[in-house]
Amino acid sequence: MKRRDFNLMLATALGVWVRVPRARAAAPRVNGARLNQSLQDFGAIGRTAAGAQRVAYSPTDREARAFAMDLMRAARLDVTVDAAGNIIGRRAGTDASRPAVLFGSHIDSVPDGGDYDGVVGSLSAIEAARTLAEQDVRTRHPLEVVIFQNEESGLMGSKAMVGILTERDLGLVNKSGTSVRDGIALLGGDPSRLGEARRAPGSIAAYLELHIEQGAVLDEAGVNIGVVEGIVGIGWWDVTIEGFANHAGTTPMNRRKDAMLSAAKFVQAVNRIVRAEPGRQVGTVGRIEALPGAPNVIPGLVRTSLEIRDLDAAKIAALYAKVEQVAREIGREDGTTFSFRQANDNQPAPTDPRIRDVIRRAARGLGLTTEDMPSGAGHDAQDMARLGPVGMIFVPSVGGISHSPRELTRPADVENGANVLLATVVALAN
Amino acid sequence: MKRRDFNLMLATALGVWVRVPRARAAAPRVNGARLNQSLQDFGAIGRTAAGAQRVAYSPTDREARAFAMDLMRAARLDVTVDAAGNIIGRRAGTDASRPAVLFGSHIDSVPDGGDYDGVVGSLSAIEAARTLAEQDVRTRHPLEVVIFQNEESGLMGSKAMVGILTERDLGLVNKSGTSVRDGIALLGGDPSRLGEARRAPGSIAAYLELHIEQGAVLDEAGVNIGVVEGIVGIGWWDVTIEGFANHAGTTPMNRRKDAMLSAAKFVQAVNRIVRAEPGRQVGTVGRIEALPGAPNVIPGLVRTSLEIRDLDAAKIAALYAKVEQVAREIGREDGTTFSFRQANDNQPAPTDPRIRDVIRRAARGLGLTTEDMPSGAGHDAQDMARLGPVGMIFVPSVGGISHSPRELTRPADVENGANVLLATVVALAN
Repeated sequence: MKRRDFNLMLATALGVWVRVPRARAAAPRVNGARLNQSLQDFGAIGRTAAGAQRVAYSPTDREARAFAMDLMRAARLDVTVDAAGNIIGRRAGTDASRPAVLFGSHIDSVPDGGDYDGVVGSLSAIEAARTLAEQDVRTRHPLEVVIFQNEESGLMGSKAMVGILTERDLGLVNKSGTSVRDGIALLGGDPSRLGEARRAPGSIAAYLELHIEQGAVLDEAGVNIGVVEGIVGIGWWDVTIEGFANHAGTTPMNRRKDAMLSAAKFVQAVNRIVRAEPGRQVGTVGRIEALPGAPNVIPGLVRTSLEIRDLDAAKIAALYAKVEQVAREIGREDGTTFSFRQANDNQPAPTDPRIRDVIRRAARGLGLTTEDMPSGAGHDAQDMARLGPVGMIFVPSVGGISHSPRELTRPADVENGANVLLATVVALAN
Repeated sequence: MKRRDFNLMLATALGVWVRVPRARAAAPRVNGARLNQSLQDFGAIGRTAAGAQRVAYSPTDREARAFAMDLMRAARLDVTVDAAGNIIGRRAGTDASRPAVLFGSHIDSVPDGGDYDGVVGSLSAIEAARTLAEQDVRTRHPLEVVIFQNEESGLMGSKAMVGILTERDLGLVNKSGTSVRDGIALLGGDPSRLGEARRAPGSIAAYLELHIEQGAVLDEAGVNIGVVEGIVGIGWWDVTIEGFANHAGTTPMNRRKDAMLSAAKFVQAVNRIVRAEPGRQVGTVGRIEALPGAPNVIPGLVRTSLEIRDLDAAKIAALYAKVEQVAREIGREDGTTFSFRQANDNQPAPTDPRIRDVIRRAARGLGLTTEDMPSGAGHDAQDMARLGPVGMIFVPSVGGISHSPRELTRPADVENGANVLLATVVALAN
């Protein structure tokens, strides 16, 4: 769906001021200048030449959290940190018996990350709450702004909130050098009392998340707002290829069991199989290690990865089955052995169709165009879908660049997204 | 050339002892039992479950050198360490005016190496000298048993002896953690006086080296002795592939600049191009690194390697030219950029045809079969070819396994090789 209205006074070529249709909804508007200034101030935390360094649990992540909590207090939210280390900023509703509408995102970054991923949604949520406070707009449902901890290493904060954080998760160590368990304690949570952070299914009215698209669809189509149909499922496998390491000078070409050659065929097979059928599925080999790893030794072992994403779990399974079959054929051809170990299996998480409608209406009310799309990236919203209906709002990423210091969402798009978020929250909370 | 005689009394199926032809030459024979016992004793130095750890300059390398020097003294050699850290065991000839016949190998190992690479040639050389001493055989030319230091990191000891060790070489640090410069001092050399270790072209009568084949040609053909035609040249390039790192979930397949995919095509192209023409050339991609290296990020940069070996430098150059051309095509197809930097360029080093004849005759005299073959591996002999005529003798490696704890040369083959070495040394030194 693409629609474009105008909500500005435009100077025509004739030099005459023309009044164009303004937003139809009476929803309040955020302070876009303030929001974009907050984004800029926030971006200074942990910024390096190689990009943003706010890896969860690092000193800069904690500095960023302090910044966010100060902003939340300025928005007159009641700020707490739950046992899992998530930051919660609560605002009472007029009917205390109703479940809360949650909205937010995360502020931790990947190593060498950007200034927008997670941050746009988090600061916009706080700005939305601040706008409601300033304009004294009350909602029937209570509101909770949530900043989930450690999204980038695997949605740790939202996993804890929905009760699926495992012992194995708690032991994982990210680039901060700190385990999730120790990290939670560092953030002011209590890893021994994670049950207290857990919410029951049905206990929330909705969860809403505004996020940058991290792809180029909106930017290239010139569309203002993405209405997310769902978060794709992710199948992730560790792949090991065993050949036989031998001397590169003395082993004839026809007597090699070259794990690197098999890996090369595997990478190409993944690409070919994933592209062979229509749809928006993606398949990626992002990691590789060849042992012993010397230019003069035929690799005897390669460890690599496979990741397949789609909105349809059955499609992921079918693509994986094809890849595994072709890998077996490559192994037979090269005298090598492939083994696959599933490292992660995120099921696709559809968003709630009614919330999609609310988002579309909110955007239309603001004179903004929308397009329905999947989220190829994982988000805390996919966990929150276990607790209640979820919705996600995307804003354009220039050039589709993501997880990079070159990541950029334009100030006008940030403001648009925050206004759609605010309007949707108000609609859902009344 | 394949010949097989028998030099043993054989019990036939009839139970009758049959006298088979014994060696025709009157050359002395080494003490095979003692040599193989030395090999076993030597192998205990630095042995671990993962293989031999006698990386040059490590404590175990130095322990191994002390062991070898003791053996040399038992062989009544005059033992010195030259300024480059090479061990020299000299035996006077009857004519002091004649240039020496040098023979030997190295005793340092790769990490996780085997018990035979270098060691068979080194201990056989000492055993040959010991045999001459015990049997009071005098040669006209002086003899020098040489154990070169740090062969495995790039022929450092022989480079110094021929005067081509560079400042860059001296700064290289191997897995011992010690630079070549500091290592030379540790071994009793003097890195500030390397000129003293240098020999002038024409100053040696010959250099001979016995070595395990490190390939499976002799073992599979059941041939006793390989007569090395030359040491292949090695072209080695560092290859960098630049694409664009992006989010694996949000970047459609047709919008990627995936450096990993280009690397996969490159690895296959190397294999295809090298195998496309007849000959014994080999091409290997042994090292790879993909950045950022996460399963959920499309690699934006791959660093890999290319190594091509052949006895003919022109063939290496032609194969490289083809690989580079195909790489450019891959880059155009994938939106990536390949760059090649030549890291090393070892020219092929042919052995001396007259020495090959002497080796063949020596083997025949011992009733052993021979086959002419290239050395696919580098050896100190390739440097020594700058000083005078060189020859190399190969003995079989079971299964062609090399640079591995599973490396094995059978005791009978070790003894055969040492006897051919001894007979060749005697022939060349008279």
